[in-house]
Amino acid sequence: MMTTIIDGKAIAADLREKVAQAVSALKSTHDIQPALAVVLVGEDPASQVYVRNKGIATEKAGMKSIEHRLAADASEDDVVNLVRKLNAEEGVDGILVQLPLPSHISSSRVINEIDPDKDVDGLTEVNAGRLILGKDGLVPCTPQGSVIMAKTVRPDLTSLNAVVVGRSILVGKPLSMLLLAENCTVTMAHSRTADLAAVCREADILCAAVGIPRLIKGDWVKKGAIVIDVGINRVEEGGKSRLVGDVDFDSAKENASAITPVPGGVGPMTIACLLRNTVVAAARRRGVGEIDL
Amino acid sequence: MMTTIIDGKAIAADLREKVAQAVSALKSTHDIQPALAVVLVGEDPASQVYVRNKGIATEKAGMKSIEHRLAADASEDDVVNLVRKLNAEEGVDGILVQLPLPSHISSSRVINEIDPDKDVDGLTEVNAGRLILGKDGLVPCTPQGSVIMAKTVRPDLTSLNAVVVGRSILVGKPLSMLLLAENCTVTMAHSRTADLAAVCREADILCAAVGIPRLIKGDWVKKGAIVIDVGINRVEEGGKSRLVGDVDFDSAKENASAITPVPGGVGPMTIACLLRNTVVAAARRRGVGEIDL
Repeated sequence: MMTTIIDGKAIAADLREKVAQAVSALKSTHDIQPALAVVLVGEDPASQVYVRNKGIATEKAGMKSIEHRLAADASEDDVVNLVRKLNAEEGVDGILVQLPLPSHISSSRVINEIDPDKDVDGLTEVNAGRLILGKDGLVPCTPQGSVIMAKTVRPDLTSLNAVVVGRSILVGKPLSMLLLAENCTVTMAHSRTADLAAVCREADILCAAVGIPRLIKGDWVKKGAIVIDVGINRVEEGGKSRLVGDVDFDSAKENASAITPVPGGVGPMTIACLLRNTVVAAARRRGVGEIDL
Repeated sequence: MMTTIIDGKAIAADLREKVAQAVSALKSTHDIQPALAVVLVGEDPASQVYVRNKGIATEKAGMKSIEHRLAADASEDDVVNLVRKLNAEEGVDGILVQLPLPSHISSSRVINEIDPDKDVDGLTEVNAGRLILGKDGLVPCTPQGSVIMAKTVRPDLTSLNAVVVGRSILVGKPLSMLLLAENCTVTMAHSRTADLAAVCREADILCAAVGIPRLIKGDWVKKGAIVIDVGINRVEEGGKSRLVGDVDFDSAKENASAITPVPGGVGPMTIACLLRNTVVAAARRRGVGEIDL
């Protein structure tokens, strides 16, 4: 069987280009430049890299990038007050608080202070609620990217059996809701599932988001299934460090009709979907309506 | 096989008794009397009956029942202003807006004005979000009652395959989330499911909430399954009007180990769970902590 390797980099680049076009249209037609504000607390090196990359990508898409840095010993109230200030700023369309926050700060309190209409990470209770209620909201980036990738090989997912392995609030649960909205029959599987291999074998679309290297074996994959691997795990092998997914790629691709690689699969989609959320939020907030990307 | 008929009336009566005991304890220990405010707009006869029954049940449980009636031509702002007033009232622990509202009023706007901590119907975006995020919130009554009933015959649902037929925001989706929280492997099936009979046959717990009389046939039920029938459909048969569920009870009970009847199954649980939510909300709001019922 010819297996399609779903190219996350190319799909992400395509989405970023579409975002840039939408931004350009907002500027020329409505004189609007969407702006994304990122809040970074402390000096975590990985977070600094992420924030810098998001800033570069935001500007590349033609949007305004605003960075706010607070010291590692900033109080919870300092962070909350900054979020409230950004909520009130007319020119700010998206607010992203880089996680993790220092341990003396409640992430949940800070996140839920974000105006849901500016919550471009889709992490507030209100946006989680809008997702389950089927209302227009802002959807977390990784699950959104996963569905976009599946639809590149199968534009209509109606009536397919989707199995989502992993029930995290960041990926598993919102991804299940998105696949349900695509009219899939959706099974939510997890560490307490009785016979995970058998459940996976029923999947036309198999999504793995558990954080266990190569948990999903090739013979758990039905012939012709679409496999979306959300896992990014660092393993040491033969003295080398490398990234692998939650799916055993080499054996799974023997059965799958299409599969995302790791790296280069879902990973690159995350920032692209963040940019997408920012332009969508900007258009809604400023009364221009829905942007379809 | 001996099939257990799950007695909703008895389980609901038991839950109402437990609520009454919790209310009594709140009074004697903390001098708190929980209060439920119900808002009725217009003259819909069925709604009037529901509101009266809720009021009687609330008082029977030892709580204060408050009724607010607005004329059918009340404006959306009138209803919103009343909700805001009830939000601000210290002595009000629960707010229930009886649905449907007259068509000139946006239910969604009114519902989302309710303070989530007083939203005893669990209908706000925030409570839907808390449910998917696994946070303490207020859970819609019918799905909550469905899980309580299943647990009367099988207290630990861990690792069971649950199939929920129907993906409504009132029942199907929240019920799926509750069963996931009970560590079931949960499949969400619906009108676009490819082979509904086959999906149902995999269920250890089969929940039907679609509103189609006797959709689920006996041979769709696995031997030994627990069947929870949320449907309440009025049908005319042999010149008589009667209530039937979404499950063909007579044939399904041949295979099920336990099954809820219609009427007398999930129906009676709804008001009992409303009372439960009200006392839980009262204890949380007033700083007494979690009540475990």
